[in-house]
Amino acid sequence: MIAENMKEMVAGSSAIRAMFEEGDRLAKQYGPENVFDFSLGNPNVPAPPEVKDAIIEMVDDEDPVVLHGYTTSNSGYEDVRETVAESLNSRFGTAFTGDNIIMTVGAAGGLNVILKSLINPGDEVIVFAPYFGEYRSYVSNYGGKLVEISPNTEDFQPKLDEFEQKITPKTKAVLINTPNNPTGVVYSEETLRQMMKIMEEKEKEYGTDIYLLSDEPYRELVYDGTEVPWLTGMYDNTIVCYSYSKSLSLPGERIGYLVIPDEVADSADVLSAANVATRILGFVNAPTLQQKVVEKCIDARTDISYYDRNRETIYEGLIEDGFTCVKPKGAFYLFIKSPVEDEKAFVAAAKKYNILLVAGSSFGCPGYVRLAYCVSYDTIVNSLPKFKELASEYFE
Amino acid sequence: MIAENMKEMVAGSSAIRAMFEEGDRLAKQYGPENVFDFSLGNPNVPAPPEVKDAIIEMVDDEDPVVLHGYTTSNSGYEDVRETVAESLNSRFGTAFTGDNIIMTVGAAGGLNVILKSLINPGDEVIVFAPYFGEYRSYVSNYGGKLVEISPNTEDFQPKLDEFEQKITPKTKAVLINTPNNPTGVVYSEETLRQMMKIMEEKEKEYGTDIYLLSDEPYRELVYDGTEVPWLTGMYDNTIVCYSYSKSLSLPGERIGYLVIPDEVADSADVLSAANVATRILGFVNAPTLQQKVVEKCIDARTDISYYDRNRETIYEGLIEDGFTCVKPKGAFYLFIKSPVEDEKAFVAAAKKYNILLVAGSSFGCPGYVRLAYCVSYDTIVNSLPKFKELASEYFE
Repeated sequence: MIAENMKEMVAGSSAIRAMFEEGDRLAKQYGPENVFDFSLGNPNVPAPPEVKDAIIEMVDDEDPVVLHGYTTSNSGYEDVRETVAESLNSRFGTAFTGDNIIMTVGAAGGLNVILKSLINPGDEVIVFAPYFGEYRSYVSNYGGKLVEISPNTEDFQPKLDEFEQKITPKTKAVLINTPNNPTGVVYSEETLRQMMKIMEEKEKEYGTDIYLLSDEPYRELVYDGTEVPWLTGMYDNTIVCYSYSKSLSLPGERIGYLVIPDEVADSADVLSAANVATRILGFVNAPTLQQKVVEKCIDARTDISYYDRNRETIYEGLIEDGFTCVKPKGAFYLFIKSPVEDEKAFVAAAKKYNILLVAGSSFGCPGYVRLAYCVSYDTIVNSLPKFKELASEYFE
Repeated sequence: MIAENMKEMVAGSSAIRAMFEEGDRLAKQYGPENVFDFSLGNPNVPAPPEVKDAIIEMVDDEDPVVLHGYTTSNSGYEDVRETVAESLNSRFGTAFTGDNIIMTVGAAGGLNVILKSLINPGDEVIVFAPYFGEYRSYVSNYGGKLVEISPNTEDFQPKLDEFEQKITPKTKAVLINTPNNPTGVVYSEETLRQMMKIMEEKEKEYGTDIYLLSDEPYRELVYDGTEVPWLTGMYDNTIVCYSYSKSLSLPGERIGYLVIPDEVADSADVLSAANVATRILGFVNAPTLQQKVVEKCIDARTDISYYDRNRETIYEGLIEDGFTCVKPKGAFYLFIKSPVEDEKAFVAAAKKYNILLVAGSSFGCPGYVRLAYCVSYDTIVNSLPKFKELASEYFE
């Protein structure tokens, strides 16, 4: 009696639960220190100390009726939105005001809000494989059709020739995620400029607007001095979706924002629609205490040197073992080429060593597996001999 | 270029913003103490002190990686769900476990989750006028059709004869809200039992399941010793949607839960679907710090004597002036009969005295206006002479 369109997802959900339970079973059987769970993108570096200080200061000093109350606008507290805008302006040379910002229930909330605002049934949203699997659900929630561009397994930059061919008059949005989950790759400015040029030409050709939705929860998680290009100003119809889940290690608190610049086509309507969508999708407003945390901690960042050490150690180990993998410049994922064509067989083989990975098929990219290295350094170090054993099954 | 189905809502949203701006303008012109804004249901009684203590204790003592991290299940922390289940069991003699509980982003989030889980396009959801206007959007988000039962203006209990006639094989759910927004009426146990009997008979007649969705954010806001019947156990297919927005005065924090009893048809599937829907609608999980607040403050309540004093004072004043209104037993609203047929004209007349009310048309019940008395006692007292002047326009 559940909704038809939920049946398949409930079946899939059972498979994920089975994986969790398997992880639990393994931990009980072998001890948690002997299980190497690289399956989840749950930050393991604590929130910076500013977060705790901000929370205590606020519950001590602020009027609880305001601190825990509905915000006057569903888009969030005005002062918080102003602070976010000013921070972006000082970092990226933009000229936003608080009116360009919608505070959201994380990036997942923000993406749902903007898709609800823009998508008509049958509209197409283009994604580049590999991509975060949930995008499929978000787009289908509003009757949209996900159009996949096949992966460029050379360096995991977007395949622009195929992209150009797949843009149609029904293309309403292009959804990108850089630094990327699951590859850790950062799209280069050159690639992005070419992508935007193609989009501008197609907008002219079809007389349409094509929104570039940039999902950026990993913007601050970059290594080796990598720069992540800021996209508004490069392409008018750019909308940014941000989350503090990673930069402040607050994934459970559900706090992020949308940036809808004035340059976006029909920006006033898009802003109004996002405000209304926040309400009618049931978010109502982003959690208020966490909005205030953002305001007080606008320059705070979680300590990413921790992830960096994990990245170097696991990457070096895997390459030494004979595995193939593009070295990630951001996020906290490695995307490893499966030594056998069917990567699910490789995931199963890894499990024999209590190593838990996720099949690339979940990201529209079979033949690869994702390893999330947001785990303790001990887990990384202790997994290395196991990976060596696993490697010996495939390489000389 | 925004989505077609958002255009009308964006227009409506502009009207609400215009009302806000008008309120602001009045406050600036006459001073905020001379403006009587009864338009919003935003609790003005502070959260109980246990909330502040719980927050400080948690950020002091708990591991931030867990406290602010994703919950393992999208349904929420296991211990929080167990605590909620045990609390319900001790209050209502039920036998829930944590598995029956889904922590949600407030009641609005919970309603969206359960509607996504259940509704196929074209399914009908019955509501009794007057009803919270957002229900229309929530149901249409999933392609459902809202079916209204006309108001019983005698005592605002549901009209059961019309209800019986409007149940069809497409009826998937009946959505009730008691204590009620906007009337403050609590549905009687007798009425509810008759309603359930009709639903059971129709289930048999059509071979369908009809879910009773009970939206209960005002359960604890009752006066004069009124009892709000607990509905699971009275009708198998009952699903309860709760929010701490009012009982803990945390509306901005977005925290509540769904109760999906084992007796519900296909309960395992409904629970799985609600878990998945929490994720794919972009909520991911209810805000984690607030989940823990609920656990620590499970028996705490905001001080409702404050609302009760407002209720008595404004009700007595209005009746004395000649207005007609059912005395509310719960929530923090009065639903006043407009002295003229077109209640929008009455809303406009009240505004001349800086009194802000909401037209009943917004709740599917023209001819009435809603007054939200969750304001300061001073606002109540100072508004009384203005209401007297307003009354003199209509009554001898």
